[in-house]
Amino acid sequence: MSVHTYADLETDPNAALAALGLDLPVVDDDPRYTSWRAQRDGTIWIAGQLPYRDGALPLTGTVGAEVSVDDARAMMRQATLNALSVAAGAVGGLDRLRIAQILVFVNSADGFGEQSNVADAGSELLVQVLGEHGRHARTAIGVAGLPRDSCVEVQMVCEARA
Amino acid sequence: MSVHTYADLETDPNAALAALGLDLPVVDDDPRYTSWRAQRDGTIWIAGQLPYRDGALPLTGTVGAEVSVDDARAMMRQATLNALSVAAGAVGGLDRLRIAQILVFVNSADGFGEQSNVADAGSELLVQVLGEHGRHARTAIGVAGLPRDSCVEVQMVCEARA
Amino acid sequence: MSVHTYADLETDPNAALAALGLDLPVVDDDPRYTSWRAQRDGTIWIAGQLPYRDGALPLTGTVGAEVSVDDARAMMRQATLNALSVAAGAVGGLDRLRIAQILVFVNSADGFGEQSNVADAGSELLVQVLGEHGRHARTAIGVAGLPRDSCVEVQMVCEARA
Repeated sequence: MSVHTYADLETDPNAALAALGLDLPVVDDDPRYTSWRAQRDGTIWIAGQLPYRDGALPLTGTVGAEVSVDDARAMMRQATLNALSVAAGAVGGLDRLRIAQILVFVNSADGFGEQSNVADAGSELLVQVLGEHGRHARTAIGVAGLPRDSCVEVQMVCEARA
Repeated sequence: MSVHTYADLETDPNAALAALGLDLPVVDDDPRYTSWRAQRDGTIWIAGQLPYRDGALPLTGTVGAEVSVDDARAMMRQATLNALSVAAGAVGGLDRLRIAQILVFVNSADGFGEQSNVADAGSELLVQVLGEHGRHARTAIGVAGLPRDSCVEVQMVCEARA
Repeated sequence: MSVHTYADLETDPNAALAALGLDLPVVDDDPRYTSWRAQRDGTIWIAGQLPYRDGALPLTGTVGAEVSVDDARAMMRQATLNALSVAAGAVGGLDRLRIAQILVFVNSADGFGEQSNVADAGSELLVQVLGEHGRHARTAIGVAGLPRDSCVEVQMVCEARA
């Protein structure tokens, strides 16, 4: 990822997404909660996203044990794409979206300390697609387990652009 | 929990709580931090709540090992009730409360992947009591440990209704 | 920490910091994300901070195993100082800063339940430096791993004072 990407404030996010060979997946709501919730002040909370692809988790398990860092990075990218899709729906399109923060959970084996490396795959996608509007504060941690034994999960906070 | 519950926008939350046989517990402040903190924009952060009941944790330990999913769900419901109580105090009553997000922590044994099932017990309570105002974005994760060996903890973000 | 500290609304935070023998460290940005991000409504997200001191982690590992509670508290204090430094930079100075919330991660051995004790070291620093403006909602959890095998990490949400 070049410095050029970060400086490019005029990114068309839909074109950037297409150039990456990606499109926004459909993410289902759960009856018990919602995929996103907007506060009156404009803060939008995206529900924690797993790396579902076509309705299934492509792989599961613990990173640093049965899941490699490279595979975990691919799953992080997928989970972030799912979060992007929900967020775009919440604000009316990728070109209206600005990211505030992501909280990254990596299902971690004992002694595994490369959570930042895994999280980077999500951070890079956000900046590749949204440019400066995709830059965000970030926290990455290792957890003891995730729903459905997912290897990663990402929570996002965003808002509509001014 | 029926679909009807979700559609019922006119829920009286105090009546709903009473119908469930519940009332709002007293939750103490800690001298080092606060049970809740409001930002100027209206966002209210509720401190992470454990399933205290009458001043004690009814049970402790790791879910998927010494704590069953059913017991963890009961504890999740209690922790969420405690968070509801703090939140109601922050905004001046349950009928002024709107939930934005919850972040659910389940003290998880290796390989335990039913964090969503445990978290559902809290999500269901919020919607049973607050109706549409209780719907929320949610993230659920498994953690390696919680204060006082609690089996669950819940963090809530809320605001006053418009 | 005396009750007096909490009641002292006229604390000069720069003087309080100096009286503790501390100054604000320089915290570097990462090219993939940012150390802080402000929303339009004024919410400021601080990226998760590790206890770096002079460019290195003074100690690493799991609390309750190779890291003692006292050492973890010292690291929590350092991580919180780093977060304070980023936050002060975001709002234009410690005397313009108000804390909303912190989320504390403790790299925890099996059965370790003193996360609150570790987190207290950060909460105390915030109130010592900022007085009432430093009081915050807090969540503390035990995690299975942290970046670079850090023993603690802290995420902060803050805003500029009115």
